[in-house]
Amino acid sequence: MASPVFSAPSTDLSEQEEGTTLRPRFDANGLITAVATDAETGDLLMVAHMNAKALERTIATGFAHYWSRSRKALWKKGESSGALQHVKEIRVDCDQDAVWLRVECERRDDTCHTGRTTCFYRIVSPGDGALTTVDPPPAK
Amino acid sequence: MASPVFSAPSTDLSEQEEGTTLRPRFDANGLITAVATDAETGDLLMVAHMNAKALERTIATGFAHYWSRSRKALWKKGESSGALQHVKEIRVDCDQDAVWLRVECERRDDTCHTGRTTCFYRIVSPGDGALTTVDPPPAK
Repeated sequence: MASPVFSAPSTDLSEQEEGTTLRPRFDANGLITAVATDAETGDLLMVAHMNAKALERTIATGFAHYWSRSRKALWKKGESSGALQHVKEIRVDCDQDAVWLRVECERRDDTCHTGRTTCFYRIVSPGDGALTTVDPPPAK
Repeated sequence: MASPVFSAPSTDLSEQEEGTTLRPRFDANGLITAVATDAETGDLLMVAHMNAKALERTIATGFAHYWSRSRKALWKKGESSGALQHVKEIRVDCDQDAVWLRVECERRDDTCHTGRTTCFYRIVSPGDGALTTVDPPPAK
């Protein structure tokens, strides 16, 4: 998908994978995958999506912005909850369809909307696939 | 998307987010996002996708399986390169549309098809968005 801000993905594989120009490969819905980890602990915090505007705002402001697929709206993370994410580093992957944000969180307890420090609070058991919660929901 | 193996996503938000049944929320293409990190170092290795079969095979065998969107085929990671991923832990996120694999790699240098230990070898500069390679390509 073309973007008014970013260069288009290159048909030259070497340019896409080894070049120094950001050429995000947005999918048919205009989105790339974004993974946020805690810059200090390395913990995986959340997986979300970005459209061109969210990526542009993240690079320009240093605060993580995503595209909310459920609300169909640009989403500055923490704008309502206070759980802002200060971006310490952004990386892009080989084919440029995913970005990795290393962030410092404000109000880390509200990183997940369920009131946890990460969205990944359940382990899938090998074999039967049952879920075990390692971080119980906060008391109401 | 219905799966012959897994329970369908619940319309009860509490069941989807707090329940102990795996109810993967596959997208319109039948895929969920999968993030792999190194179980020892915590480094982000790759972001990929899984269909129901790939998720089922990963849980059942303990080796990471993905769905290759480019090849449109089930992909046991490392089957040809030798860079197998032994899954030490699988977690699922709040709405169950993403999984996190903590893996031990064989031939970690070949984790990325470009011959690197991670797909995320380029940093996006704040401001201008130019890319800086932190891990040069291997010598031919």
